[in-house]
Amino acid sequence: MNEIIRPTLIIDKEICLRNIENMAGRAAKYNLKFRPHFKTHQSAEVGEWFKLFGVDAITVSSVQMAEYFAANGWKDITIAFSVNILEIENINSMAASIKLNVLVENREAAKVLAEKIKYPLGVYIKIDTGAHRTGISPSKTSTINAILKKLSPNKKLTFKGFLTHAGHTYKAKSTNDIFSRHFDTLLKLKSLKQKYKKDFPLIEISIGDTPAASICTTFDGVDEIRPGNFIFYDLMQLNLGVCTTENIAVKMVCPVVSKHILRNEIVIYGGAVHLSKEWITNINGKQTFGRIIIKKDGDRILLDPLNYVSKLSQEHGILKVIHNQFKNFDVGDLVEIIPVHSCLTANLMGHYQTTDGEIISMMPKY
Amino acid sequence: MNEIIRPTLIIDKEICLRNIENMAGRAAKYNLKFRPHFKTHQSAEVGEWFKLFGVDAITVSSVQMAEYFAANGWKDITIAFSVNILEIENINSMAASIKLNVLVENREAAKVLAEKIKYPLGVYIKIDTGAHRTGISPSKTSTINAILKKLSPNKKLTFKGFLTHAGHTYKAKSTNDIFSRHFDTLLKLKSLKQKYKKDFPLIEISIGDTPAASICTTFDGVDEIRPGNFIFYDLMQLNLGVCTTENIAVKMVCPVVSKHILRNEIVIYGGAVHLSKEWITNINGKQTFGRIIIKKDGDRILLDPLNYVSKLSQEHGILKVIHNQFKNFDVGDLVEIIPVHSCLTANLMGHYQTTDGEIISMMPKY
Repeated sequence: MNEIIRPTLIIDKEICLRNIENMAGRAAKYNLKFRPHFKTHQSAEVGEWFKLFGVDAITVSSVQMAEYFAANGWKDITIAFSVNILEIENINSMAASIKLNVLVENREAAKVLAEKIKYPLGVYIKIDTGAHRTGISPSKTSTINAILKKLSPNKKLTFKGFLTHAGHTYKAKSTNDIFSRHFDTLLKLKSLKQKYKKDFPLIEISIGDTPAASICTTFDGVDEIRPGNFIFYDLMQLNLGVCTTENIAVKMVCPVVSKHILRNEIVIYGGAVHLSKEWITNINGKQTFGRIIIKKDGDRILLDPLNYVSKLSQEHGILKVIHNQFKNFDVGDLVEIIPVHSCLTANLMGHYQTTDGEIISMMPKY
Repeated sequence: MNEIIRPTLIIDKEICLRNIENMAGRAAKYNLKFRPHFKTHQSAEVGEWFKLFGVDAITVSSVQMAEYFAANGWKDITIAFSVNILEIENINSMAASIKLNVLVENREAAKVLAEKIKYPLGVYIKIDTGAHRTGISPSKTSTINAILKKLSPNKKLTFKGFLTHAGHTYKAKSTNDIFSRHFDTLLKLKSLKQKYKKDFPLIEISIGDTPAASICTTFDGVDEIRPGNFIFYDLMQLNLGVCTTENIAVKMVCPVVSKHILRNEIVIYGGAVHLSKEWITNINGKQTFGRIIIKKDGDRILLDPLNYVSKLSQEHGILKVIHNQFKNFDVGDLVEIIPVHSCLTANLMGHYQTTDGEIISMMPKY
């Protein structure tokens, strides 16, 4: 870390490879297709690491991201974002050259797909299993049937099955709670699969969240998993109990610029434009934007959660530090911050630096 | 807006010019040097607009940003971020070719400046007038004296005066509260100026916040203002009462992808990677990430605050919409979102699109 002089997102390739290997192993063990979500890292180069473990199909969160990874050689992509009908021509262009899947959750989008798509395209129906962000309630078979009816005249469209992102596992209060939310998701999707497999014998169930994919041991009825965050993990996942600190593959290295002992605060160069303003509640009930690792006598030490990133403005971060740690910070030191949400942090930084000092680029912003 | 198919940050140049003209006019009226902060727009092209109003000196929030604007012809720059001593060689290089000012708030940084700086450099001492983020309490003259003593052996360094960012005006409960926080800041800085002007007759007072710069009418003792956000304004400033909706120059245009009537929610393509997770408390006590403008019968209508951006994930935004507005949204519509904090939104997007469809670039990320 000798060369670092400003906020720098360090990626540990060895940890990433271990995380990918572990998740690919879990998929194999439970007989699941592994279609990792690339929105977390957004990098063609990091994408290559997945090929070492047999990955040939991926998930992305936008049409632009699909275009980027298609341009980098990926030929089987699911855009896990309900179709934005304004991008229908971009979807058409990609469907002409790669195996592409999209999601629908309403009649309007189904109608546009049926009218406009000219090349083979897989279509998943997005199901809301409890996250209540997007998707159709599994009990609303009338809506599902109406969508299937709209899609059916266009023979380029193949109904692939039901897809969910059980994002409510991120709000679980315990690992047991993750198991129970996951189990409920399985029940809902299995019942849908039963209902529709007579007419569509090849339909699949695809689920997505990193918490369940990391720790659950039942995937009854599921055909495919699409976790993304697991390649890096972060403080949110650590607090959920689905990873250990040894699994966290990205850290923001930040210079210490000032110390304010009267309020036990350290000022770092590293703010909202580096870490993002995503926060979680700390054990003391306060907002936290990250945890702190310091170097002491050559060792890297993760400080306990009472030392934490308590505030962020555009370029500044404020560390609240307990009194007897204060002496371990000096102006000009570099500290490492475990970000709350690694996907948003990576997106902000736009590139990575490996532990060997090599730069890894990401998808350009435009 | 015919061409827009995905989240797009629209900049209204006419409003920007009016905002700059207004602030330049206020500076002239109160006999203040106008050194606008360019961290808000981070764009060389937008920077040119300021020259129309006589601006020749600017403020930035990082060494990299200073390098970017110096490369784009700016020759008088204040880096309004307490010196990060790890970047001392970059500061030296810039000081060799432009008029550069930096901030110090501790002995450690002062010592490094004294030892390493080889070219003329202006130095402000950062004062904490109540924001409690960075800076020295104005009563701590012993620290101020110690810093001045450390700086004095290096004749390339010029003590320029006292600088503050009264960021606590952003937490004011009313415009009266902004006036009173600003007045308190003035008293503190004026007393410091009195104390030090015998030894340093040319020292200046520099203040920075957009709320006070926009509405206050007393700047007694102040020599320079450094507001930045005012070029765009945003929802935070609107709620503080320091601008009107007509002053807000940037909006995120987002496609509607889905409607969920059971929970009165509209799903837009536009999430944390577009707007940022900066939030403020809405009038209903909930978190809000933006307000909504719709098009109806050819008119643009700002919906009342009970219609608002209630949640953001990476690419999705959720609009909470009152029942009788629900019918005004259709899948495939474009809505405009007023961002909570335009600086962070602009930083995320990395470029602008003018109302005429022209692309304006920003500082590259690395």
